[in-house]
Amino acid sequence: MSSCEFESLEKSLESHLPESELREVKRILFGKETQKLDLPECAVEAALEHSFELKGYRFEAAQEQLRPPRRIRVGLVQHRTVLPTDAPVLDQVAAMHSRIGEIVEVAAMCGVNIVCFQETWTMPFAFCTREKEPWTEFAESAEEGNTTRFCQELAKKYNMVVVSPILEREDLHNTLWNTAVVISNSGTVLGKSRKNHIPRIGDFNESTYYMEGDSGHTVFQTQFGKIAVNICYGRHHPLNWFMYSMNGAEIIFNPSATVGALSEPMWPIEARNAAIANHCFTCAINRVGTEHFKSEFTSGDGKKAHHDFGHFYGSSYIAAPDGSRTPGLSRTSDGLLVVDLDLNLNRQISDKWSFKMTGRYAEYAEELTKAVRPDFKPKIVKE
Amino acid sequence: MSSCEFESLEKSLESHLPESELREVKRILFGKETQKLDLPECAVEAALEHSFELKGYRFEAAQEQLRPPRRIRVGLVQHRTVLPTDAPVLDQVAAMHSRIGEIVEVAAMCGVNIVCFQETWTMPFAFCTREKEPWTEFAESAEEGNTTRFCQELAKKYNMVVVSPILEREDLHNTLWNTAVVISNSGTVLGKSRKNHIPRIGDFNESTYYMEGDSGHTVFQTQFGKIAVNICYGRHHPLNWFMYSMNGAEIIFNPSATVGALSEPMWPIEARNAAIANHCFTCAINRVGTEHFKSEFTSGDGKKAHHDFGHFYGSSYIAAPDGSRTPGLSRTSDGLLVVDLDLNLNRQISDKWSFKMTGRYAEYAEELTKAVRPDFKPKIVKE
Repeated sequence: MSSCEFESLEKSLESHLPESELREVKRILFGKETQKLDLPECAVEAALEHSFELKGYRFEAAQEQLRPPRRIRVGLVQHRTVLPTDAPVLDQVAAMHSRIGEIVEVAAMCGVNIVCFQETWTMPFAFCTREKEPWTEFAESAEEGNTTRFCQELAKKYNMVVVSPILEREDLHNTLWNTAVVISNSGTVLGKSRKNHIPRIGDFNESTYYMEGDSGHTVFQTQFGKIAVNICYGRHHPLNWFMYSMNGAEIIFNPSATVGALSEPMWPIEARNAAIANHCFTCAINRVGTEHFKSEFTSGDGKKAHHDFGHFYGSSYIAAPDGSRTPGLSRTSDGLLVVDLDLNLNRQISDKWSFKMTGRYAEYAEELTKAVRPDFKPKIVKE
Repeated sequence: MSSCEFESLEKSLESHLPESELREVKRILFGKETQKLDLPECAVEAALEHSFELKGYRFEAAQEQLRPPRRIRVGLVQHRTVLPTDAPVLDQVAAMHSRIGEIVEVAAMCGVNIVCFQETWTMPFAFCTREKEPWTEFAESAEEGNTTRFCQELAKKYNMVVVSPILEREDLHNTLWNTAVVISNSGTVLGKSRKNHIPRIGDFNESTYYMEGDSGHTVFQTQFGKIAVNICYGRHHPLNWFMYSMNGAEIIFNPSATVGALSEPMWPIEARNAAIANHCFTCAINRVGTEHFKSEFTSGDGKKAHHDFGHFYGSSYIAAPDGSRTPGLSRTSDGLLVVDLDLNLNRQISDKWSFKMTGRYAEYAEELTKAVRPDFKPKIVKE
């Protein structure tokens, strides 16, 4: 079985393990089981009709005396590009808008409050080509671009917060950024969050197109909780997750674009570790499929030039602060993951584990401040 | 099947999954496969005779032109307590010394260069009882205690670095600490590393016995590489791993004592995430079995008093900077994990992924310094 045919880890385990062992295996691998969510029949039918996977799960929190539950519903969307990568730019964008429109309509049927799309969702992940044209033409204003206007319409129509990661063009200085636009359920652009850490690895030296973000660790207070966006490669940096949490994030989205050979064994680890370490929910989203480019390109790995850089393995999931996680969406098809979560769980787990209280952050601030100085002497003991 | 009977995740997968799916499942769960190590026949026999599991694996690194391989062999030991917890203190310690002596002898047959034992290995993990006696009598001088002398003998005899986590009594101020003593293969005490983060959770408010360590993030330069020790609860704190790495650690040991219901789904995540994020090897070690105490105690969870606090699930493993990991030792029996690793892999993966280069640490130092001030204003955007 080739890696781009293998549908999902969870499915494989469920097909072959005997019930008693499956329970233990799932407990160790995924933590406390997330219950399946009953989704409306019309949503299930629409997903089937539009050929995307629809899965729903629920994280529970304990009942408290003084606070009512803070149950919200989050939707993660993963999808392939729709048209070939050499179709006209506007056609490609329109086709993606249309595809997202179908999926978000189903999210609305499911009562989703906050939806997040994958990294630079309006375009192929073409940064491997190192060509500037036509890819920079996909860049849009975060505040006034067509895609933002499209998302504002969705947000208003469905009373849904929309997190829309795009390639941003800032007109004033004519700079490009990898940016998530956060749109309130009122339709207002709440703000934007730029990718903080830029990969220079394999096919992706994305600094050909955009540099490290300058928006710090902004958190967005929405009607459905305080959210933040840690884009793609930032998930490898624990300090990035941490600083969003220090600014109050209750849910951190991680819209990504990453392929199997590069990162797949890290995928189930990093966002989940961040949920545990920071007492918050994290949402890992990856695109799906293989994208072909007309021009061939090399990957700095001594191999021959080629027209694609591998299989985006989807597998989007949500992790909770208690170390549990939902199953992943498929590795091979478009999908919508709908997850009920009670934000009260964050404080409950924090009260239990107390990582913030036991974190000794003042001491780390001092140590790190010393460690970044040019005259830093590491503390190494020798015989 | 009850949780303390379930032997191991890996064994369950290997028994039931068809070969082609098993390969994909293992790739996603464990990364690049670690090859099994051929261990000497005499070691295999001795392990069998002394009733402990012996497993061996190898992480490979690429051949370089300018640096020879830096292959070393690490041994992790997990074990039960030997005598009942109400046996005389000296008898309990002597029985543990004897057990460790048997296991380290086998480690020596396997050519292990650095061995690490579990947290407070000379005693039951009695801190749940909240009794001071007789448990504080297990505390010893890190520099001159019997256990350190015992480990110095092992180190000299077998030319092996020994990491020996004990309950430390510092005579000068009469304070207790949870401390790892690091002994060079020459037999010299290189130094000690105290537990930086102290849990206050469930059965374990260990600050009844010892407080947060004052030894910072010391790294020990041994003949076999630069090592550090992040004790137990410190594995939940990404900054703790990070700061050891910033001080140059190539291998970070995490001697632990943790039970199933509390932390098992986090266990495969945290040390592995630290290996990925910090471009180093991490070694997670947990004790095994259920420890019974004569006095009953409650766990602050509304439940009845009891005489044990659950099953230590073993499952010790090593994670590599490329996101791969060894299978775990058993959840149910004593064991020795022998692992070959080529320390060149750290720099190779760092050169590939460049997390240190893209880490923006100077900016985090500033942000964290602000965040720990009493007048810190989180960066929250509202409509």
